[in-house]
Amino acid sequence: MARFVVPRPSRHTRPGLPRMARMTTAFEDFHVGQVLEFGSRTVSKDEILAFAADFDPQPFHLDEAAAADSVLGGLSASGWHTCAMTMRMMCDAYLLDSTSQGSPGLENIRWLRPVRPGDTLHVRMTILETRVSKSRPHIGLVRSSWEVFNQHDEIVLQMEGWGMFGRRDMPT
Amino acid sequence: MARFVVPRPSRHTRPGLPRMARMTTAFEDFHVGQVLEFGSRTVSKDEILAFAADFDPQPFHLDEAAAADSVLGGLSASGWHTCAMTMRMMCDAYLLDSTSQGSPGLENIRWLRPVRPGDTLHVRMTILETRVSKSRPHIGLVRSSWEVFNQHDEIVLQMEGWGMFGRRDMPT
Repeated sequence: MARFVVPRPSRHTRPGLPRMARMTTAFEDFHVGQVLEFGSRTVSKDEILAFAADFDPQPFHLDEAAAADSVLGGLSASGWHTCAMTMRMMCDAYLLDSTSQGSPGLENIRWLRPVRPGDTLHVRMTILETRVSKSRPHIGLVRSSWEVFNQHDEIVLQMEGWGMFGRRDMPT
Repeated sequence: MARFVVPRPSRHTRPGLPRMARMTTAFEDFHVGQVLEFGSRTVSKDEILAFAADFDPQPFHLDEAAAADSVLGGLSASGWHTCAMTMRMMCDAYLLDSTSQGSPGLENIRWLRPVRPGDTLHVRMTILETRVSKSRPHIGLVRSSWEVFNQHDEIVLQMEGWGMFGRRDMPT
């Protein structure tokens, strides 16, 4: 369940995206400075090993002894696994009931701390920029930053990127 | 199996990373301008649906009818799935037999074309920059770009980022 909060400078509790609870989220619902906090995803050792076996079988994601000897100091999730879990938290919090049309790309992905078996992740999303697409005026672009924290409120992942959303006030 | 090629300006066929075939790849084996081509990964519809169900259950990754109506014009893999498959191709081509210590981050991920069921992907990697870590002199940093193409040689994904590699000529 998403928890809406206002930007950091003013620590009030009025909702940041007030339309979300009432109707499908569209481009018009995003405003620069909004902060959205959401997600609570616990990752098991088995999930870490399964993702690594499929996509990132480096020893520090797949083998406890090798991981203990690595720069990561113990078994940790592939950075791509953390990104994918973050994507799922975005879907559940706002994308699945929205006019989302996907994303053209992301910037500045930073894997800042290892994600360990048993960690529980949550996300803080901040809206940085909104604009209507010049080439496709029925689409709006929303640039956001996402910060992902573990259960100790330590940041594990930071990234920025664009989402494309249909506009509510435009005929298709 | 990796295929080594030289940078685009000179189209000769001498190997770009000559030590790779003989011994574990270390920081010293990467040089600015090297180009490495590798990978041949076919993605099935079932794999696309399974990844989407876990991590990115937006309709255009999970439902053929909804996907046909979307901006993507048909079912396509989650962008994170494409990144994860690219990671696996990197692992198989050079990371698993290397001194890799993971990555601090990536930049400029661009999902340029949809990846469809049945597509076969391959990667072209170009070394952009190499330097020894100031804070950890036994580690070298390698900045690369990765371009991922489908079987029609259309680019589907582009990204840049840093890898950390142990140095061969440094005592640990």
